[in-house]
Amino acid sequence: MAEVWEQLRPRMLELSELGSALRLLSWDQHVMMPAGGAGGRASVMATLQSLAHGRLTDPALGELLQEAAADSSLDAMQRASVELLQRDYDKATKLPEALVRELAELESLAFQAWAEARPANDFSILEPKLARMVALKKEAADAIGWEEERYDALLDDYEPGMKAREVEVLFEHLVPALKPVAEEILAAAGTRPAFLSQTYEADKQESFCHWLVKVLGFDVDEGRFDVSPHPFTIHIGRGDVRQTTRYEPHAFLMSIRASIHETGHALFEQGLPKEHWGLPAGQINSLGLHESQSRIWEIQVGTSRPFLDFLLPHLKDKFPEELGRLEPAEFYRGVNHPRRSLIRVQADEVTYNLHIALRLELELALFRDELAVADLPDAFDAAMEKYVGIRPDNHSDGVLQDMHWAVGALGYFPTYTLGTLYAAALFDKAQEELGDLSGELRRGDTSRLLEWLRVNIHARGSVKPGKEIAEDVIGTKLSHEPFLDHLKQKYAEIYDLSF
Amino acid sequence: MAEVWEQLRPRMLELSELGSALRLLSWDQHVMMPAGGAGGRASVMATLQSLAHGRLTDPALGELLQEAAADSSLDAMQRASVELLQRDYDKATKLPEALVRELAELESLAFQAWAEARPANDFSILEPKLARMVALKKEAADAIGWEEERYDALLDDYEPGMKAREVEVLFEHLVPALKPVAEEILAAAGTRPAFLSQTYEADKQESFCHWLVKVLGFDVDEGRFDVSPHPFTIHIGRGDVRQTTRYEPHAFLMSIRASIHETGHALFEQGLPKEHWGLPAGQINSLGLHESQSRIWEIQVGTSRPFLDFLLPHLKDKFPEELGRLEPAEFYRGVNHPRRSLIRVQADEVTYNLHIALRLELELALFRDELAVADLPDAFDAAMEKYVGIRPDNHSDGVLQDMHWAVGALGYFPTYTLGTLYAAALFDKAQEELGDLSGELRRGDTSRLLEWLRVNIHARGSVKPGKEIAEDVIGTKLSHEPFLDHLKQKYAEIYDLSF
Repeated sequence: MAEVWEQLRPRMLELSELGSALRLLSWDQHVMMPAGGAGGRASVMATLQSLAHGRLTDPALGELLQEAAADSSLDAMQRASVELLQRDYDKATKLPEALVRELAELESLAFQAWAEARPANDFSILEPKLARMVALKKEAADAIGWEEERYDALLDDYEPGMKAREVEVLFEHLVPALKPVAEEILAAAGTRPAFLSQTYEADKQESFCHWLVKVLGFDVDEGRFDVSPHPFTIHIGRGDVRQTTRYEPHAFLMSIRASIHETGHALFEQGLPKEHWGLPAGQINSLGLHESQSRIWEIQVGTSRPFLDFLLPHLKDKFPEELGRLEPAEFYRGVNHPRRSLIRVQADEVTYNLHIALRLELELALFRDELAVADLPDAFDAAMEKYVGIRPDNHSDGVLQDMHWAVGALGYFPTYTLGTLYAAALFDKAQEELGDLSGELRRGDTSRLLEWLRVNIHARGSVKPGKEIAEDVIGTKLSHEPFLDHLKQKYAEIYDLSF
Repeated sequence: MAEVWEQLRPRMLELSELGSALRLLSWDQHVMMPAGGAGGRASVMATLQSLAHGRLTDPALGELLQEAAADSSLDAMQRASVELLQRDYDKATKLPEALVRELAELESLAFQAWAEARPANDFSILEPKLARMVALKKEAADAIGWEEERYDALLDDYEPGMKAREVEVLFEHLVPALKPVAEEILAAAGTRPAFLSQTYEADKQESFCHWLVKVLGFDVDEGRFDVSPHPFTIHIGRGDVRQTTRYEPHAFLMSIRASIHETGHALFEQGLPKEHWGLPAGQINSLGLHESQSRIWEIQVGTSRPFLDFLLPHLKDKFPEELGRLEPAEFYRGVNHPRRSLIRVQADEVTYNLHIALRLELELALFRDELAVADLPDAFDAAMEKYVGIRPDNHSDGVLQDMHWAVGALGYFPTYTLGTLYAAALFDKAQEELGDLSGELRRGDTSRLLEWLRVNIHARGSVKPGKEIAEDVIGTKLSHEPFLDHLKQKYAEIYDLSF
């Protein structure tokens, strides 16, 4: 073992352990913390972030990284870890400490402002914090540096290696292809099946979802499954992956889908190679690839006819009065019933990526200095009309619907669509290699698919950028076509359409 | 504002915020963490502890502290904070790093050995680890330094400023006065009331206790109330105080008493002056004073006739079948029914401090080199017979019953009795100043008592050592007499005794 690696590894682990503490502080903030703790929590997180920043920017680390880069004895996981940490080191040494600290504090405070602003339908509560956030993010992007445009630097935090223009081009192909297909499907959809609008007791939803995530392979001895206003998954530390969902009596399918979605994220985290825990390349840094795992379980598995055929009898056991007489075909059509919705997280797979397209347009405009935060609410409404075809009549359902911007996650949204595109291509490839999966999905057996994902995706961590890992597996360049083919094929069958 | 203070304060806050993160990691470990996270969590905590140690032992901090000590412009809270941090700095810099590391390792190894030894009833599993623990604690005490005797240095970690001889003298007065009173009460107690041994559904206990802690003034907007195997209270951070309890169907009174006890601790933490959060003197470092707050609520309020008269109808609402026909007088006698028990944590207020007396005697003997760890089991059994009047017939109920010594908490036990003595004296003083409280307690109104404690105790943090704060309020030297008077008066009435 190279001597430089033996010096570098403990530093990587220390950074990862500081990250662990920060992730627990964050999970707790969203799931457990009493409201009164918000202000104090913000400073604790800022202090830890600043300490972590200090360790990351230690010049001795910079020297070790340079030495390690020249060491040809390192294996692929080690080499990738050196490169990823070099990238973080470069970014961190370029960011002034005061900026890092202000951003960290602002993230907590702006989140609290958003949480107040949304129910109050009052953008002005969030606006000053969000304006400051965008200003600081621009400052940070410029400090880090970029080649083609500022937004590249933001995107790089969520989808390393991807460029703004590259993503924009993907959407330039996707949107014109998707819009007419979506319109045709929406027009064919007809009235919403009644079972979707019934009331389902939250406690029963909860016990059903706790059963379901275990069926899908989530290991509860190495994780938790809780409730939070916005479902999320977080890898707290070695052997500790936590996901959340929420239960609403009037939106049972939402709870099931959110639970399956988060389980996809959680399975990816639980599938990371344990022996590389704490190494930069032993973690997941491509949110697009991360989203591909949540989408493949939510959509390709969770809304498929065979898997829904498996779920329905279990659902009937839990809700005999509500669902006792529902036919499998009706259930399948209902789950996949598309609807033009104002709310991204309620959007179906037909319109979801149009919601992302509108957010990408706004983010690009913000960072190309073509849009001011003060004008964001109107721009949001207009873009919603342009892409999704409806206009919000209040800010809660418009610009205030997502927390992302408030917590500084700018450059994040496009990874949702990348995930959709990766997922469709990966599922095609899995069936190409494993054969048709519908027989086993109909029995609720997802083990061969999980194993295939473990080997081909999960075990690789971040040994390469996400897009390269995906392209290695699918064997072609990333494109919108597998996703569009999937949509067309599915809905052609459901509504007897021809595309 | 003094310039040195402006440099010192951020360092105090940073240390406090690192403590905050560590406390959340610890709370989560006991209340939320999945089993699989244990190994990873231990390293995260060790990493953070070592970072905090590095900040505490920074020579630049030492210089600032010296400068601040000479600054006459500081106010009382600032001066006390400088002195307390100087004390921590001295301890941290005087302890050799190898000793700190060995102690930290030994704490977890000895805890594991204890957890094995107790169910196996086999002291030999723990003995070598405990012998090493005592040896290391002696070494640490000598490294830190002491004036009169070694045990002073241990006691100082839990009750700063208190000396071994001072505590010993308190017990030399307490024990001979308490023993005959306790014997007389135990002899009068008669058979145990049946309602104490019934089964009470855990879910209903839980909702009752959630109601109860709010009645007592626990602010759930700035705290949480959860379940853990061992009840505890922890001040996570500003505006975030968390307490736990546990519910056992066969021990309802235990849950209620533990909840009231922890609420006492939590009210103290919630009553600290917010503007001094993070300063050493803005926190509580006297465990005796801390325990006085838990005891005053658990005993002086929670087992009093008027408060139990208030509780009973609410309990009957919750448990109509189990308690519907219970008379107030019978309830009061039952709650206060004393019983000679081998186990400290099950002991009532009559015998509890005799359990502490025996532990103090053994700890003093260990650190005065008058007792070897190998002889501890026999010495424990003999002391139990001498103080409590029964002899354990196995080590599980004898020397192995507490985890304190295994985790290195040597010098901790006496603070339980200090808490008892402070509590009795403080409650007398409160009634002297506020008038008889029984009328309002009978209505469940504890607000004037809480306000009195807030002003006289909580708001002062650690601006002085605990005993001095208590003596300032009670206006006399600390003595065992108020506690003994309280016991005599209460039980004279319950069992028609005369003392």
